[in-house]
Amino acid sequence: MRVGILGSGLMGGTLGTLFARAGHEVVFSYAHSTDKLKKLARDAKGKARPGTPREAAQEADAVLLAVHWSRIDDVLKQAGDLSGKVILTCCLPMDEGNTKLIIGTTTSGAEELAKKVPRAHVVLAFNTIPSEVLFGVFEARKNSSRPSLVLCGDEPRAKDVAAELIRDVGFDPVDVGPLRIARYTEPFALLVGELAYGGKGGPELAYRFERFGR
Amino acid sequence: MRVGILGSGLMGGTLGTLFARAGHEVVFSYAHSTDKLKKLARDAKGKARPGTPREAAQEADAVLLAVHWSRIDDVLKQAGDLSGKVILTCCLPMDEGNTKLIIGTTTSGAEELAKKVPRAHVVLAFNTIPSEVLFGVFEARKNSSRPSLVLCGDEPRAKDVAAELIRDVGFDPVDVGPLRIARYTEPFALLVGELAYGGKGGPELAYRFERFGR
Repeated sequence: MRVGILGSGLMGGTLGTLFARAGHEVVFSYAHSTDKLKKLARDAKGKARPGTPREAAQEADAVLLAVHWSRIDDVLKQAGDLSGKVILTCCLPMDEGNTKLIIGTTTSGAEELAKKVPRAHVVLAFNTIPSEVLFGVFEARKNSSRPSLVLCGDEPRAKDVAAELIRDVGFDPVDVGPLRIARYTEPFALLVGELAYGGKGGPELAYRFERFGR
Repeated sequence: MRVGILGSGLMGGTLGTLFARAGHEVVFSYAHSTDKLKKLARDAKGKARPGTPREAAQEADAVLLAVHWSRIDDVLKQAGDLSGKVILTCCLPMDEGNTKLIIGTTTSGAEELAKKVPRAHVVLAFNTIPSEVLFGVFEARKNSSRPSLVLCGDEPRAKDVAAELIRDVGFDPVDVGPLRIARYTEPFALLVGELAYGGKGGPELAYRFERFGR
């Protein structure tokens, strides 16, 4: 699969690296510097290269959107036409200081994003785990019990693409329904963040849904 | 511990039963009929009895509030003065049809409840798991790996009481911080509900947070 990374910070940089190690063709774009993109591509050790947002997006089978909420309009403008594209977003609608969600309950970041790119297929995924846990989960991917990762979206084919990438990095994809379920998974992401960054156990946190029959 | 159950429906009835089986003294109150309360007390097989909300609350070390959001004012009025009481709430601020949260993002049901009973100590707990999983988790409580259960609140002593009751019914309590974190755990409860009732696997669903070191 060709995966374009829009936003090569902690989350985008780490996921792009793991997608490349899982055998996908990755274009890293939109970081603070071109050097950062070059280094990411070099260190990924797979079919990875640096590029512009437009280069990352235009040939991609899936685009990962991983920028701060305040940069979405800018990166979308640079990426060009995204009609028909599968967009995996892990962006959370946070204020500038990253202290709180600025929308929720009656809508969500993912739904507002979908309105900006009505001809793309938006899937919310990778938003509910800290970037710090990704390498550990990837390296443990042969274990029998994988952590869960929730995704939601309105387009089944796009969700299949998301589920494949989620599996490739070591998680068990859990489809929680249409894109409006983002109203629940975005606050859940903040809950995981509280536990990862606010507690004593360190940020390498994941979660798993399990059934307990009587 | 003496535990008063305000709202003996599916969640309150099941939790009260398990608290009694774990050795606590339980008063069931506020169900559709007195017969229901009597039956719950009889079936609990421990030190359990039916009572009025006032009887349930006044002698209690902890009060479990488990009514529909629309009934909170009524049950609080019937319960009488709750100053100094530990109130564990699993109520979610849902609309009458139970289709969606009516508040969130900038406040939460638990925070609004705390404003109604400013001299009580409110802990949000037991809201993030379906009632259908409770017996299964209780019966598996000797297993090494227990499911997590998040709680939040502003009063450490009240959270200790909540954590003890959470342990007694088979979960691993996870303190996620002050009561305002209810803004995240209430939508998370809806997410668990989607998976429990919307999916194919059945409602006996729980979750576990785990760390994956590199």
